[in-house]
Amino acid sequence: MAANPVTAIVGAGLVGSGWALVFARAGCQVQIFDPDEATRSRLLPWVRQSADELQTVGLITEADAVVARIQLCDTLEEALDGAAYVQESVFETVPTKTQASLAIDAAMGPDTIVGSSSSGIPASHFTSDCRNRERFLIAHPVNPPHLVPVVELVPAPWTDENAVTWTRELMDRVGQVPVQVTREIDGFILNRLQGALLNEAWALYDEGYASLADIDATISHGLGLRWSFMGPFETIDLNAPEGIADYSARLGGMYHQMAMQRTARAWPEKTVERAQQERRQALAAADLAGRRAWRDAMLARLAAFKKANGLGP
Amino acid sequence: MAANPVTAIVGAGLVGSGWALVFARAGCQVQIFDPDEATRSRLLPWVRQSADELQTVGLITEADAVVARIQLCDTLEEALDGAAYVQESVFETVPTKTQASLAIDAAMGPDTIVGSSSSGIPASHFTSDCRNRERFLIAHPVNPPHLVPVVELVPAPWTDENAVTWTRELMDRVGQVPVQVTREIDGFILNRLQGALLNEAWALYDEGYASLADIDATISHGLGLRWSFMGPFETIDLNAPEGIADYSARLGGMYHQMAMQRTARAWPEKTVERAQQERRQALAAADLAGRRAWRDAMLARLAAFKKANGLGP
Repeated sequence: MAANPVTAIVGAGLVGSGWALVFARAGCQVQIFDPDEATRSRLLPWVRQSADELQTVGLITEADAVVARIQLCDTLEEALDGAAYVQESVFETVPTKTQASLAIDAAMGPDTIVGSSSSGIPASHFTSDCRNRERFLIAHPVNPPHLVPVVELVPAPWTDENAVTWTRELMDRVGQVPVQVTREIDGFILNRLQGALLNEAWALYDEGYASLADIDATISHGLGLRWSFMGPFETIDLNAPEGIADYSARLGGMYHQMAMQRTARAWPEKTVERAQQERRQALAAADLAGRRAWRDAMLARLAAFKKANGLGP
Repeated sequence: MAANPVTAIVGAGLVGSGWALVFARAGCQVQIFDPDEATRSRLLPWVRQSADELQTVGLITEADAVVARIQLCDTLEEALDGAAYVQESVFETVPTKTQASLAIDAAMGPDTIVGSSSSGIPASHFTSDCRNRERFLIAHPVNPPHLVPVVELVPAPWTDENAVTWTRELMDRVGQVPVQVTREIDGFILNRLQGALLNEAWALYDEGYASLADIDATISHGLGLRWSFMGPFETIDLNAPEGIADYSARLGGMYHQMAMQRTARAWPEKTVERAQQERRQALAAADLAGRRAWRDAMLARLAAFKKANGLGP
């Protein structure tokens, strides 16, 4: 791998824009393409502002240099020219991903590797017809990628193992935290864990055990604190005298019991409507965008806090 | 409620000790009792050290005064003398909780309210024979209570609503974050959410989709970052243009699909053994205690970070 591989980004929405910052702040030249004019026009102002925010919290020192490494290209071919890695970040439907993958496939170099930002659709659903499909895999980030470092790497059945290893090394090198998923599964790891917790949260809310805000508080002022720097397994490993097996012996039965009380069901429509009303009272629709910007500002400060305490990259 | 109600703590293990700090740093006189000599001898040195740590990170300014408010009592009666509130924190089995509740019941004042630190057993399982059972409820903290502020309040069917309201006000006043659970359910809210996520994590590990460390990383470098300052509902409310109903319409089907792929089952024994080995390679048994101290030091810094950014009490 070159010291700072040239990277291409296809799709300049929120996810693609965040990726541009990830690679550029690590020293890589970034060539980004999006066919949509409105999206293109938002990119560089957003990059400028976000780079300044990263500098303000101390996560980067040379915002100007970072911004200068990001080049908005007029065509897909121009973006892919000389790129060792492509981060595909187009809209997440099978047809859109398929079309983008085929276009990338036609323009990519003989050693180029392509990671898709897909958050739940496995690569086999949209790369099967690619000539170079053994160099396509999933590299799923959390939004926004420049503030939340985890990246799930998920190979399709035909993905070359070396492509996975290479991408893992790239992600390590640019300061992300790659997670290796051994084979395809709907939702990968991250959204399956989120989904399991959400399904239980919806059931508790639906049955009237607590308000939306109070259920949120059990995480944001409770479980989420430890989970922001140690995972669920390390958490329980420290929560019994002899570690994780001891914890499982003590509490596994209780958790099994709870699981048996539940059957899979869709999130109830009326309850979702009630939740929407409860949320819009807590936060008006007009304030959603502002709250998202606030969230990202807090994530930037949290990233700086974790870095300063040796808890994150 | 008096400005700083006198509080009694029954059980001076890790949970009871943390509660002592919670009430003492808020200005309350704390009277704590434990019949076990070894536990008694550990209390005051631990309180001293922990108060100093809180002062170091800026969460309190007068460690000496906080320590001075905590009085180790020789009998239960002495501890309860003049107490407006009792935090019962004895070992979590039904017989032990029952015995402690009856002893408190016999010694408590005519207006005293009793909260139990029980993490999953509802109060109706161990307070039914108490003379004053309408003044007993669950006040479940996360360990350690002085660093993780959430407290689940769960009434038994016979608990007086005023006792719940009073305890909620007390918890607010001492800087905890009370969460109101409307009625009893095994595991309450917090451990049901934790259990749902753990059940899925065990299944993914058991089926070989990822290593223990990589599953942990999806939380500690991914989902856990947002969850450390906003709950799961607010998280998804911000993750779709029109809010939580929009998110549910887009992704509810995917999460339902995932849930249907799972059936409730016990955490598989052999997999737990494998996890124990993987964890002990990452962290030797001899280092567990040190890592717990490190975790608590990080939680203290995180609490200070959240306070400084208006994210927590």
